[in-house]
Amino acid sequence: MTVRSPLAPENFPDLPPIDGVRTASLAAGIRYSGRTDLLVAELDPGTTVAGVFTKSLCPSAPVDWCRDVLAKGTARVLVVNSGNANAFTGSAGVDSVNRTAEAAAQLFGCERSDVYLASTGVIGEPLADGKIADALPKAKAALSSGNWTGAAEAIMTTDTFPKGATAKAKIGGVEVSICGIAKGSGMIAPDMATMLGFLFTDAAIPASALQALLSEAADQSFNCVTVDSDTSTSDTVLLFATGKAENDRNADLSDFKRALNDVCMDLAQQLAKDGEGAEKFVTITITGAENQMAARTIALTVANSPLVKTAIAGEDANWGRVVMAIGKAGQKANRDKIAISIGGVEVAKNGQVVAGYDESPVAEHMKGRNIVIEADVGVGNESATVWTCDLTHRYIDINADYRT
Amino acid sequence: MTVRSPLAPENFPDLPPIDGVRTASLAAGIRYSGRTDLLVAELDPGTTVAGVFTKSLCPSAPVDWCRDVLAKGTARVLVVNSGNANAFTGSAGVDSVNRTAEAAAQLFGCERSDVYLASTGVIGEPLADGKIADALPKAKAALSSGNWTGAAEAIMTTDTFPKGATAKAKIGGVEVSICGIAKGSGMIAPDMATMLGFLFTDAAIPASALQALLSEAADQSFNCVTVDSDTSTSDTVLLFATGKAENDRNADLSDFKRALNDVCMDLAQQLAKDGEGAEKFVTITITGAENQMAARTIALTVANSPLVKTAIAGEDANWGRVVMAIGKAGQKANRDKIAISIGGVEVAKNGQVVAGYDESPVAEHMKGRNIVIEADVGVGNESATVWTCDLTHRYIDINADYRT
Repeated sequence: MTVRSPLAPENFPDLPPIDGVRTASLAAGIRYSGRTDLLVAELDPGTTVAGVFTKSLCPSAPVDWCRDVLAKGTARVLVVNSGNANAFTGSAGVDSVNRTAEAAAQLFGCERSDVYLASTGVIGEPLADGKIADALPKAKAALSSGNWTGAAEAIMTTDTFPKGATAKAKIGGVEVSICGIAKGSGMIAPDMATMLGFLFTDAAIPASALQALLSEAADQSFNCVTVDSDTSTSDTVLLFATGKAENDRNADLSDFKRALNDVCMDLAQQLAKDGEGAEKFVTITITGAENQMAARTIALTVANSPLVKTAIAGEDANWGRVVMAIGKAGQKANRDKIAISIGGVEVAKNGQVVAGYDESPVAEHMKGRNIVIEADVGVGNESATVWTCDLTHRYIDINADYRT
Repeated sequence: MTVRSPLAPENFPDLPPIDGVRTASLAAGIRYSGRTDLLVAELDPGTTVAGVFTKSLCPSAPVDWCRDVLAKGTARVLVVNSGNANAFTGSAGVDSVNRTAEAAAQLFGCERSDVYLASTGVIGEPLADGKIADALPKAKAALSSGNWTGAAEAIMTTDTFPKGATAKAKIGGVEVSICGIAKGSGMIAPDMATMLGFLFTDAAIPASALQALLSEAADQSFNCVTVDSDTSTSDTVLLFATGKAENDRNADLSDFKRALNDVCMDLAQQLAKDGEGAEKFVTITITGAENQMAARTIALTVANSPLVKTAIAGEDANWGRVVMAIGKAGQKANRDKIAISIGGVEVAKNGQVVAGYDESPVAEHMKGRNIVIEADVGVGNESATVWTCDLTHRYIDINADYRT
């Protein structure tokens, strides 16, 4: 029995339909019973697409597939299953991807290279893709607009709540919408931070411009979230733009960029809030770093430290472990200038505890749901912020018996 | 109440006295009550010394001290306290180190630069070094030979058993002995894998040769052990050679090298066996890597993966997570040639599960105390082995309330 994360939003947000996108979610019986496990999205002709993927050197067969077809830049169908990742399945995995793409292309009357695939779940077991092929006609018959909750639920694995986000933007005076759904709660780390994420917009944006926008948005959001430092073989974020808003394709995209970043950030933070066993949402900001990369590396090292994460779980303002993590990050830091604040209260500066340090307001902060740790490493002017969660007993409960 | 690790050896091993080394352990009341927390060792004149230290960029004051005096290559006194790491204590930490070295030098009639210091315990709190200075005369009066158990116990923090190892070697036909003690159970990761470790031998070996031997031995042992990927600010291994065996200083050292490696390896494996919350000792061997560094990086990535470690805790032969970890290591691996064995049973080869895979013998292996995971990454001929433990509820219990 899954307990909903205490950090979950109260409700799934209100996401509008996106013109040119219709989805269906159903139970194909791939692994789970009594729940949906297949998401199919049909995209109107003219839809452009961008994607970012896991940096794992052992990617899943669907990731290989998406990378291959992405060069063309157009999309008509998205097929996503949960329960089985189709990763480390050798030639069987490749065959299975080919069969599913072929079945979808035939059914929807498009090129195979307009079919996008994603799978999430157990690694190393052959995917029963026959069940997907069997379910596709039923999915086609059930397509509808705006059922984002159903879509977000169908792609969940150990997630305790469905994740969605939306924003509006103006392109050349025309209002466009972005809706996004995501899944992921463990095996989450930067490069990619993910998970699966699917974003849809009615904006008309050429594939190359769309790719640049998505790459940058993902870098500032999904790549700044970590749950357990583990990187999935299947991480995939796709952004589909149907063009139905008929905005000027040459208009300025800065407002769309802002909106896309907002949606990605919202989804990324929901991932951390659904980190396996998460009781606390943790924001870590590193300032005073030599450069951006150093700042983020240090921030992620703090965020991934099991000792920092267990201290937070124990509501212990153990800033010494933050220092330890800064020290092991391998990036320049001036030990004798380090300053640390927790919950906005200065704990240490110039490399030692502040005079007359009163732990009580910090201890109070540690009892809350939102923990904020800031550290200045005293060597430069660059900063980075990352998001994570604490490491609790439930993480172990979830992961010690995931397959059983 | 500390529960002794189920992986602990039955008894502390039988370590012989080392000629030229006398130790005393006592309760200085630095942090703990009802236990010893101070180790003092007196070394006869003529003792040479070698050391390896944390690669943390925020090292503790005693680490800075030892690095400074090591250039001279001689030692007369070692002072180690547990309970407080004297790390991230700013100028107070430096002052405290200076006072302790001065007090020890005066009492034992040696140069300050012949005094070696180490501290382990909580970070960021000023060390009550006055208590150490007060206890030094009592320690001097209590010095004796061969009480290695007492020495190993005095330096423990969250350790559940004292750690010692010994070996004999011949140098130019003369028998010499090596005795080592170590502490460490959390915040353990390569570079250094440690912890504190103190090794003593009656061999006569010049400091420069001693340093080369220790650096190599530590690289193959302490740097191949990981508990939680966290690197302490205080990691220190020191090797003292009293020269009392009066062996030929120009004789071949290969047998001594073997013995030193054995002692370091024994201690390193004891660290993993006392990993915080450890229920299982895990040996991970990567073969088929492009080069040595790649092999070790991949092995450590597998060993540090929270998802691999929790699966082992759950006795789940989840080899898919091993693939995931190989994939995220950032080193060359051929996904479609990867082979994995668990407990000597081939689970996967050529990138997929073996035909007719029967999980039952593997499931049986996972129930044991000693877990062996081997993976061939299919790109070269180099290999590496590392040691770790599983990630259990007790790790979180220990670390969520360490300071309270």
